[in-house]
Amino acid sequence: AETTRIAVTPGDGVGPEVVEEALRCLEVLRTKHNLALEWTRFPWPSHTWHQKHGESMPDDALDQLRHYDAILLGALGDPGPLDDPDRYLLSDSVSLAPLLEMRKGFDQWVCERPARLLPGARQYLADERAKDIDMLVIRENSEGEYVSQGGRLRKGTEDEVATQMEVFTRRATDRIIRYGFEQARARAAERVKEGRTRSFRSLDGNRDTQAFESQVCLVTKRNALRYWGDMYTEAFEEIRKEYADVAIHHELVDAACMKFVQNPWAFDVVVASNLQGDILTDLAAVLSGGMGVAPSCNLNPSDTGMPSMFEPTHGSAPDIAGQGLADPTAMLFTTARMLQWLGRKDPVMAAAGKELFSTVAADLKENAGKQRRTREIGEAICQQIAG
Amino acid sequence: AETTRIAVTPGDGVGPEVVEEALRCLEVLRTKHNLALEWTRFPWPSHTWHQKHGESMPDDALDQLRHYDAILLGALGDPGPLDDPDRYLLSDSVSLAPLLEMRKGFDQWVCERPARLLPGARQYLADERAKDIDMLVIRENSEGEYVSQGGRLRKGTEDEVATQMEVFTRRATDRIIRYGFEQARARAAERVKEGRTRSFRSLDGNRDTQAFESQVCLVTKRNALRYWGDMYTEAFEEIRKEYADVAIHHELVDAACMKFVQNPWAFDVVVASNLQGDILTDLAAVLSGGMGVAPSCNLNPSDTGMPSMFEPTHGSAPDIAGQGLADPTAMLFTTARMLQWLGRKDPVMAAAGKELFSTVAADLKENAGKQRRTREIGEAICQQIAG
Ligand SMILES: CC(C)[C@H](C(=O)O)[C@@H](O)C(=O)O
Ligand SMILES: CC(C)[C@H](C(=O)O)[C@@H](O)C(=O)O
Repeated sequence: AETTRIAVTPGDGVGPEVVEEALRCLEVLRTKHNLALEWTRFPWPSHTWHQKHGESMPDDALDQLRHYDAILLGALGDPGPLDDPDRYLLSDSVSLAPLLEMRKGFDQWVCERPARLLPGARQYLADERAKDIDMLVIRENSEGEYVSQGGRLRKGTEDEVATQMEVFTRRATDRIIRYGFEQARARAAERVKEGRTRSFRSLDGNRDTQAFESQVCLVTKRNALRYWGDMYTEAFEEIRKEYADVAIHHELVDAACMKFVQNPWAFDVVVASNLQGDILTDLAAVLSGGMGVAPSCNLNPSDTGMPSMFEPTHGSAPDIAGQGLADPTAMLFTTARMLQWLGRKDPVMAAAGKELFSTVAADLKENAGKQRRTREIGEAICQQIAG
Repeated sequence: AETTRIAVTPGDGVGPEVVEEALRCLEVLRTKHNLALEWTRFPWPSHTWHQKHGESMPDDALDQLRHYDAILLGALGDPGPLDDPDRYLLSDSVSLAPLLEMRKGFDQWVCERPARLLPGARQYLADERAKDIDMLVIRENSEGEYVSQGGRLRKGTEDEVATQMEVFTRRATDRIIRYGFEQARARAAERVKEGRTRSFRSLDGNRDTQAFESQVCLVTKRNALRYWGDMYTEAFEEIRKEYADVAIHHELVDAACMKFVQNPWAFDVVVASNLQGDILTDLAAVLSGGMGVAPSCNLNPSDTGMPSMFEPTHGSAPDIAGQGLADPTAMLFTTARMLQWLGRKDPVMAAAGKELFSTVAADLKENAGKQRRTREIGEAICQQIAG
């Protein structure tokens, strides 16, 4: 088999520390399963690089990364010295830009954050049914609110007008909706394999007579943002005809956020626009236990050979950086997702991903609430895998 | 004193039922305190009106309402017959339009939803500190993402491009931010009166040395929606100088939603754009116990004589309409907020609002979890007030 090559970008703050544990685990898995896997570390994008070169990554960064099979990213963002009163204004706009550049450059048009509340993960909701949360939020990751078009007229005056354009194409809409339905089917099949079932009702004519094994909920704000809201709805109505086995549902984004808190266990697959998906994926991350465990996957599922990018949802936590205190759990879950993704056509790789996932999940359950150092957690997982 | 006139628009579904209880309570308060208060009912906007006249309200609706001091709205939205497979597609876009028309027509540029978890209200979060939730989300209600500009190019084809323009003016930005700071001050003063205190740290240079009694958190998505994100941030940085007594904070909308679930008790006043505020106010409503208790206030605080509009957050719940089952609690809290608003310069009116609020709050605490009919709850409140 061809060698799978990973570009590792540890980034800022606690990024390098948690990435180190991920690589240790990868090494153990590689040896154990004889995986054709190799990786290269890059010192950018990062704050350190920015300080030296005046930019977060080199001009040809995307070209350097293009031929890797995946990018594994630690964390980005360094707001500068603690006593700088303006640090909170700088933090995100400067140092996080490379994230968006990579998503666009590699057409990572799907952002996925699965939300399943694992035993041992923090449970924020009071209702016991939170244990049944098992949803996948699929965010359109290539256009929409994030096209960066617009400007500021009469900038800085009291007559200023700032505009921001949202641009949605039917093509990108179709592909993300279709991707959502495919995932719904795949999840249902996976559940059947695991001997689990779920039951959904559909909002269309079948809603009272038929039970479905999976569901796709389309989120928009079509009562206020009509143009793309209508286009999304029409595309959804068209595509769902190809998936008569999948229940459908519609929510407005404000109601969806409410219901994520009120009864998240009723959702299966959720499809949303770039900004609304950003919000919903973050909410989904909290529902599955928060920053400490949530992976974020920026995928290019098209057959273009361009790399997908995997990062934990958490930030760079500069206040505890370099002290060996950061919890690598989210990073390890992220690495497991990456292997599963890379293993789409390679069962051994996929199995290694599942193994890493189960090992981290078991460790989380066993050690819930314990204070452990970065190394300690990484070491425990490595030993488990090594057997 | 001049008579205060209220336009009552019961609307659809359970709207008329819950409004009836609100009016009963108003009548008791009016008599008891000799309030110079009168009201007029309007059969529109509503689905019934739409069915008869092909539009949700008459052409001159806004002119008819313009000279009232407030609008008290029950609920809007009727998705049509239960067996119509397309009902879920119609529900919101058609029947909720009048809401937006009134907000625009009467320049109700603030939308407020206070979130305080009252005893007896449903608590969705597991953490006991949820009891300390006490925030006010202030939503810019006049422009931004809701300007309805844009269109659909090559509509219905696979090459379609849908655009949606967001337009923000510095003037509207300044006024909403200033309003936020004023509310923060007023809330701190109110707390002092009630013998409560809170302590906030500020993100600027003072953050480690000084404790503040109130805080304003500005929410944007300035790392992705830069044009207005920057303008909002600059306006905020400018205006906060006038409020050295108020702590400041910044959040990105995705992080804000997370933190609303993780530690909402850390927020005081939150200022956000129209769409992001829509989402955050809905989340705030859940945090304060959900649809059953949450009021929504669309305010025009300028001295223009145009009416503000008050509505419960809940929908029209057509499935239980007409059966006397709807809980009027949210509607009664909404009515209390209206009286307090109308009483800005009339202490007796304001006191009546507070009285209604406390009575409903006490009833909620006492009867938490009980199944009661609409009339029963309204009757209990009326009797309490009558004394
Ligand atoms: C850093 C930021 C631009 C990014 C986004 O908004 O997409 C982040 O919030 C995320 O979800 O990965
Ligand atoms: C009905 C809808 C247009 C409205 C909004 O988005 O503002 C509603 O969600 C609200 O919050 O009052």
